[in-house]
Amino acid sequence: MATENISDSRIRLGMVGGGEDSFIGAVHRVAARLDDHFDLVAGALSSTSERAQRSGRMMRLPEDRIYPDHAGMARLEAARADGIEAVTIATPNHLHHEHCAAFLDAGIHVICDKPLACSMAEARDLAARAKSADLVFTVTYNNTGYPMVREARDIVASGRIGEPRAVQIEYAQDWLTNPIDAEGHKQAAWRTDPARVGPGACIGDVGTHAFNLAAFVSGLELESVFADVSSFVAGRRMDDDANILLRYGGGARGSMWASQIACGNENGLRVRVYGASGGVEWDGETPNHLKVIEYGAPPAILTRGGFGVGSAANRITRMAAGLPEGYLECFANTYLDAAELIRAKQQGRAPDPAALDAPDISDGMAAVGFVEAVVESAGKDRWVDVRR
Amino acid sequence: MATENISDSRIRLGMVGGGEDSFIGAVHRVAARLDDHFDLVAGALSSTSERAQRSGRMMRLPEDRIYPDHAGMARLEAARADGIEAVTIATPNHLHHEHCAAFLDAGIHVICDKPLACSMAEARDLAARAKSADLVFTVTYNNTGYPMVREARDIVASGRIGEPRAVQIEYAQDWLTNPIDAEGHKQAAWRTDPARVGPGACIGDVGTHAFNLAAFVSGLELESVFADVSSFVAGRRMDDDANILLRYGGGARGSMWASQIACGNENGLRVRVYGASGGVEWDGETPNHLKVIEYGAPPAILTRGGFGVGSAANRITRMAAGLPEGYLECFANTYLDAAELIRAKQQGRAPDPAALDAPDISDGMAAVGFVEAVVESAGKDRWVDVRR
Amino acid sequence: MATENISDSRIRLGMVGGGEDSFIGAVHRVAARLDDHFDLVAGALSSTSERAQRSGRMMRLPEDRIYPDHAGMARLEAARADGIEAVTIATPNHLHHEHCAAFLDAGIHVICDKPLACSMAEARDLAARAKSADLVFTVTYNNTGYPMVREARDIVASGRIGEPRAVQIEYAQDWLTNPIDAEGHKQAAWRTDPARVGPGACIGDVGTHAFNLAAFVSGLELESVFADVSSFVAGRRMDDDANILLRYGGGARGSMWASQIACGNENGLRVRVYGASGGVEWDGETPNHLKVIEYGAPPAILTRGGFGVGSAANRITRMAAGLPEGYLECFANTYLDAAELIRAKQQGRAPDPAALDAPDISDGMAAVGFVEAVVESAGKDRWVDVRR
Amino acid sequence: MATENISDSRIRLGMVGGGEDSFIGAVHRVAARLDDHFDLVAGALSSTSERAQRSGRMMRLPEDRIYPDHAGMARLEAARADGIEAVTIATPNHLHHEHCAAFLDAGIHVICDKPLACSMAEARDLAARAKSADLVFTVTYNNTGYPMVREARDIVASGRIGEPRAVQIEYAQDWLTNPIDAEGHKQAAWRTDPARVGPGACIGDVGTHAFNLAAFVSGLELESVFADVSSFVAGRRMDDDANILLRYGGGARGSMWASQIACGNENGLRVRVYGASGGVEWDGETPNHLKVIEYGAPPAILTRGGFGVGSAANRITRMAAGLPEGYLECFANTYLDAAELIRAKQQGRAPDPAALDAPDISDGMAAVGFVEAVVESAGKDRWVDVRR
Repeated sequence: MATENISDSRIRLGMVGGGEDSFIGAVHRVAARLDDHFDLVAGALSSTSERAQRSGRMMRLPEDRIYPDHAGMARLEAARADGIEAVTIATPNHLHHEHCAAFLDAGIHVICDKPLACSMAEARDLAARAKSADLVFTVTYNNTGYPMVREARDIVASGRIGEPRAVQIEYAQDWLTNPIDAEGHKQAAWRTDPARVGPGACIGDVGTHAFNLAAFVSGLELESVFADVSSFVAGRRMDDDANILLRYGGGARGSMWASQIACGNENGLRVRVYGASGGVEWDGETPNHLKVIEYGAPPAILTRGGFGVGSAANRITRMAAGLPEGYLECFANTYLDAAELIRAKQQGRAPDPAALDAPDISDGMAAVGFVEAVVESAGKDRWVDVRR
Repeated sequence: MATENISDSRIRLGMVGGGEDSFIGAVHRVAARLDDHFDLVAGALSSTSERAQRSGRMMRLPEDRIYPDHAGMARLEAARADGIEAVTIATPNHLHHEHCAAFLDAGIHVICDKPLACSMAEARDLAARAKSADLVFTVTYNNTGYPMVREARDIVASGRIGEPRAVQIEYAQDWLTNPIDAEGHKQAAWRTDPARVGPGACIGDVGTHAFNLAAFVSGLELESVFADVSSFVAGRRMDDDANILLRYGGGARGSMWASQIACGNENGLRVRVYGASGGVEWDGETPNHLKVIEYGAPPAILTRGGFGVGSAANRITRMAAGLPEGYLECFANTYLDAAELIRAKQQGRAPDPAALDAPDISDGMAAVGFVEAVVESAGKDRWVDVRR
Repeated sequence: MATENISDSRIRLGMVGGGEDSFIGAVHRVAARLDDHFDLVAGALSSTSERAQRSGRMMRLPEDRIYPDHAGMARLEAARADGIEAVTIATPNHLHHEHCAAFLDAGIHVICDKPLACSMAEARDLAARAKSADLVFTVTYNNTGYPMVREARDIVASGRIGEPRAVQIEYAQDWLTNPIDAEGHKQAAWRTDPARVGPGACIGDVGTHAFNLAAFVSGLELESVFADVSSFVAGRRMDDDANILLRYGGGARGSMWASQIACGNENGLRVRVYGASGGVEWDGETPNHLKVIEYGAPPAILTRGGFGVGSAANRITRMAAGLPEGYLECFANTYLDAAELIRAKQQGRAPDPAALDAPDISDGMAAVGFVEAVVESAGKDRWVDVRR
Repeated sequence: MATENISDSRIRLGMVGGGEDSFIGAVHRVAARLDDHFDLVAGALSSTSERAQRSGRMMRLPEDRIYPDHAGMARLEAARADGIEAVTIATPNHLHHEHCAAFLDAGIHVICDKPLACSMAEARDLAARAKSADLVFTVTYNNTGYPMVREARDIVASGRIGEPRAVQIEYAQDWLTNPIDAEGHKQAAWRTDPARVGPGACIGDVGTHAFNLAAFVSGLELESVFADVSSFVAGRRMDDDANILLRYGGGARGSMWASQIACGNENGLRVRVYGASGGVEWDGETPNHLKVIEYGAPPAILTRGGFGVGSAANRITRMAAGLPEGYLECFANTYLDAAELIRAKQQGRAPDPAALDAPDISDGMAAVGFVEAVVESAGKDRWVDVRR
């Protein structure tokens, strides 16, 4: 398997949040485990002590490394000879800053779920801490871990489609079609609560994924947005649908649709970039395929592992062509890259340059800026600069 | 065949513009001929006399009914006992007003290509003339002639998907990727020439199709737009790409992307409408299918002629399920409806209500208003009311 | 429009069978009308005199050219100065021989629905008559009229996919899932009646289409078959499903599945041919696309009217790329080719070689041979030679 | 995550074969690791001592549990208090019998790659040993581990599609298009070597997957086959393409196409079952979707994790609807079920009945019988009974 090269010992990993019943916590664990580069050995897995205990046992953590809170965990793990080398932060957004800061200050590498933080101030503070401590800080904008997304990026970067002109992105879901946030659905409740989720709900949850993906594939910097943000469901406190106009550096224009009330869209993430001489189209529900257009010839369908695919995609390809890879594999690729970055730091060497594709704190900061700009634009009905 | 019911004699039809080398002229002719309700008997087919002659002969028109210009044609045909009953106007946009007016004033029904006119003033004037003369005036926003588009409209109207919330439309082409308008491509030249095409190029040509389709399917009135309009190709005088935010009556929101520089998109017309309890999705490159979502159940794929499809679609369905129908058939349905409306007028009876689905002058006017509003919004960087 | 070149006068056409309520009769009429090369002027449209009259009036035939039977029609039309030049035979299979023979003997070109006849003896007799009379004889295996089918044929013939190895074809429908033939469904009744349909029902109706299509695309001669033929529906008298192994000249092997009881398959005609260095795949429900594989490169999706498509397809392409064409257009292409062949005969010149792509009596004969061989193989449980 | 319930300690696992450069070995390891139910602690990973050592170290096995051969491993592991509880056999087919037997005899549960053995005699012998030792014996026909395959099975079993009539299966690949087996490609060499692969190459490798999948989904027993087996590539010693007619108990009929020379088919596994009142269609390249037809209604597209999906599929669903799962996840489900079966044996309790879906030795035996029957039929040109 391309990704299996286990000459080093496993990286000792801890987790904050992500206990039983957490969807994303389980994703992080499988992603960390898939290539066997990490060993989960400690956790503060829930704010409720009983659930923290139960979750820790479910994951077979040693009793003394099942912590009731992140602060104690950071302090005690830092003090152990066999303490964790990295931590996954899988708590609600409003806790990211405090939790990440604690581990950075304890000298522990951080893998933080997205979005990074609830404000640019928080994001900048984390970036400063990570920089001064010289630690790896990965933010799991995991969609850039799909091999065919990296292929798309390489094709655009190579100039094969010419200077980008049009960028169309969308991320449509339907799980918030009904007011489940008001009816006791725990995940829906915090994700639509301004106190816990930050200034944007739908735009923070799925909008920032789309923002990140488009930036990655197009290689362009988003400069400004004009946003029309809606909350369609009675009683909902935050946005559940947004239409956003995009202006990129270099003159490309586009639009983004982010929604969590689009019935029938389970997880419709899609990016299309068109340049002066071609285009690329990728759809997250068929992630092993990439449509590549060179204007003047029939479009080609590139497949993961198939003919004509380049080294960046092949490096993170596990399965033979035609054997589908999915979401867990792409998430695992973010962990794979993080593992290489952490080991390179530990070994005092330069990392494999390809591992720098892992989304880092600068991607996290940019996405926080995007949310702030969208909210500001929607409030003021004018174009707002995203760069901050 | 559902559409074949030829108890009446054929309607005598004339054509202005649309001679040899015209793409859309040929489409109109086949569409008129398909169900055998029309007989093309007269034409002023080109502004160049020689081409007009040659085109008329190619179509086997009688020599005395091959006219050098529309004005003479309108006058002489109106004077004949066997003169044309209806005329197709297939000239460039800036001539629509003059040409339509001439035939309306001669008491002849009009089938005009879209967009209707270059300004609301022109459009209103034509509407007034058609009304006072009590004539049929069809504007060939033909996509509403697809059976599954009518099915989608009926599903939305029935309330099955609930109150519409999100409307996503796009019409992406790539034929203007290169500066062919500056290189002698006749069709491209007039379609990007402000003197001949009106205030919007891409937004008039394909944008108004998308606008019309979304209004038809959603049953909603578009109230205001915020537009970002671009011209990407060096030397091009008009827009070739536009991203537009949409606010509909009743609170639905959405966006439209219209482009003629999106490499790999041959004719990508797509409409999606999502309501409080479901959605419909239709793609013009697979027009015989319609995805229907009722939230809480798996999506269904309705097929033209297939199970579960209603009467409006079946009325204009020619082929058995699984035998694909295409663009010519949908265009022919617009002619089919026009034939019924014309005969009802002639026979002094009420038309089959289903034939009122044919796009008429009010649709044409609304689309002209859309173009004006988009141009104004793009110029002023603010939301602009579309209703005028 | 590529196909519109109407310098000649229309060919006077008659029709036998195909009156009101006939599905295929209406298809023939539209197909003949689409490019304006034919004028339907006479008919013996039903075996029931009243229906024949009503159908003829519906089609606006002159009263004296609405005939009660084919024999009188052949005789009287042959005697008229303005008599029909060609006739469409759209009667049930068991009448094809008699009807075709009458018109051939009257010196009238024939366009006969498929299958050609109920036995090789009948087929050979018609071939002999057509040959001695030097008349055009088209058999409407219309699927070869799809532009992308001709493109597929050209690609295989060019050697781009190498020597064919594997041929996979299927034609699956579901309209005979229930015993509608026993419940008064007229079309189903005759199509499953051995006295009217010939030795094969499903294999004659859809199986021969698949057989013809595969031969056309692959350029190979089918040599022998091993067939497993079933009748699944209680009370049905003939086959409604068949699985057939195929051995082609040159060593290619394959299989065919023909069915009319495959729920959910409205009209699933599909052909795939794989050679030593590539392959082509075409699906009749998305007929404007063709997947082309050159081994070692990503597959390309060729589109009708799009980049990289050759002259045979473009010659019969009406609409711009992305504007879908369908079944009527492909059927019209068979008529388009027939018109050219007929005119060439009339004008004593060689036809446009491309028009020879129209399926002719040799295709019709081969298909009758296929049906006979399949029935024989199923009866004897052994490989049977198809060539006869 | 539905599959994560780690109350028990991990099962100690060994592996025979599957060392560095083995594709399927890596698949087994990830599959075993994904849900954290297994711990790989011992291995005889290659027949070459040096590669066995290097592979063992790559997997971080303790030095004393990196074995040079399977026999020593079985003996020594059985003697350890912390010896392996289960073993994965990932060697070429001709070694399966010897290797499996050694571990069964040592009282160790077996997870064997497919096909099970090179003859019915070998297969029966293994079955007898497994039975007498009361050990779990899983054969990794992993495609039954796809959630939507289990959903398809449940739908057919529920009677929703009626009595099955038509079964269409195919498994087409293209990796043996060229004579790479003769050019030093290690994997291709043994897979086309009669001494190592058994009587069938393509039919054993992919044909048995298709056979197993169709039996699982349809719930039918295949009774007899008529096969046409080919070897297209010069110098190849065994079959690389096969067309096979299928007769099932209960009267259903069908065909299978298995190929490894079908250019452009990376891994085209597809099963379709049609009954008297509906059908199911599943395609292994889009495994998260299942088309379900109830005759008389539009088809529905069921999605893994989506609305209307039943408990068998949901039990093994890890990701939310719309987040694609792939091949590794389905393979992991086979391991998940094996883990439950092993623990139930160890704990002296009945297993979760759902875990009995794991393909076991009876599935392995049936597939060996299928290969033998296909080879016999192709040799004798007659129908051959598969049940043996």
